[in-house]
Amino acid sequence: MRLADLSKRSGVSTATIKYYLREGLLPPGRQVNATTAEYDEGHLRRLRLVRALIQVGKVPVATAREVLGHVDDESLGRTIRLGAALWALPQDAEPDEADPAVAAARTEVGRLLELLGWETAREMAPLSPVHRSLVVAVAALRRLDYPWDAELMAPYGALMMEVARRELDFMETHASDAEQVEMAVASAVLFQPVLRALHRLAQEEESARRYGIE
Amino acid sequence: MRLADLSKRSGVSTATIKYYLREGLLPPGRQVNATTAEYDEGHLRRLRLVRALIQVGKVPVATAREVLGHVDDESLGRTIRLGAALWALPQDAEPDEADPAVAAARTEVGRLLELLGWETAREMAPLSPVHRSLVVAVAALRRLDYPWDAELMAPYGALMMEVARRELDFMETHASDAEQVEMAVASAVLFQPVLRALHRLAQEEESARRYGIE
Repeated sequence: MRLADLSKRSGVSTATIKYYLREGLLPPGRQVNATTAEYDEGHLRRLRLVRALIQVGKVPVATAREVLGHVDDESLGRTIRLGAALWALPQDAEPDEADPAVAAARTEVGRLLELLGWETAREMAPLSPVHRSLVVAVAALRRLDYPWDAELMAPYGALMMEVARRELDFMETHASDAEQVEMAVASAVLFQPVLRALHRLAQEEESARRYGIE
Repeated sequence: MRLADLSKRSGVSTATIKYYLREGLLPPGRQVNATTAEYDEGHLRRLRLVRALIQVGKVPVATAREVLGHVDDESLGRTIRLGAALWALPQDAEPDEADPAVAAARTEVGRLLELLGWETAREMAPLSPVHRSLVVAVAALRRLDYPWDAELMAPYGALMMEVARRELDFMETHASDAEQVEMAVASAVLFQPVLRALHRLAQEEESARRYGIE
């Protein structure tokens, strides 16, 4: 398809598409003559992922370029490509190692991964920014005197594993191999607001059931 | 306790505590003479909630004041106090009603609440900013051609209800009646990063199990 069709089908203006091309977020089309290039379904899919990252995920352009670089790196296996892409997404604040709540949180997160039997997460822990985010979040709860330990977290971990399994099942049935890493990255960005909203709605609903509305 | 002890026990500087007092985020202490006020465990608890909102939740001071006003409004029942406080927290972008993906998302969210039997959420839908956030998040997925309908969302809704039930069980056993609304608001802000990090760790773990690491 031509640039104008790519714009129409994606809902992204031609000016924005040209900007993404210049920034290397979208691979160039196949040049058919000096002034015209041809784009395919892969471009359309990539354009939607770029919009998800930048418009919904508020990811800076340079970060989006790095994330997409990992998605496209076919020298890596699927898990590593996905992991590298997810790790390149903007992360929460780094833990303050001088804070005793951080040390306690790190111990509990370590015990949690052991309880859950998440072997890869344990091995990756020293490198993983996601692991560090969890330590920071648990430390914040513990500073507020929530007795937030491995036993208390384990059922939530099991529920989130159930969510992750459903997501991967969905991807396996709805996406080709080549598309699955793209889809996993888009869903890491787009799915989080769905879960957050469902969680808050569930809190209100269950509160109304237990305590009534008056 | 005196201001200096409140500062020591909370880890918040006396200058910041004085700022919170001036801004009405913390109720005044009991004046024991012209220059000294006495603070109690309620002040300590409130100070921790204020820090959670402002430092972890990045909530603006004016918004935090509004949230706390709802928490303290004893003319309201518990569900309404909690709901009003949660609704006053910063929300995601408003839905663009001209977008056909938004109309389709609203229909699916309506069907979802019917499938789940969430009666309060259905009644509150026209008023609830949480409901609007869910519509926006689902519309973003549908624009990317995810076939995201009520049947697909229902199991995630059920999992989030399981999370909410565990949270309320925890609050009922660990907090007095007066503290429960405060605790629910703190956990709405502080618990979300824990769930998000657990979710991403679970994605990596399950991906490694299915596809290996190479």
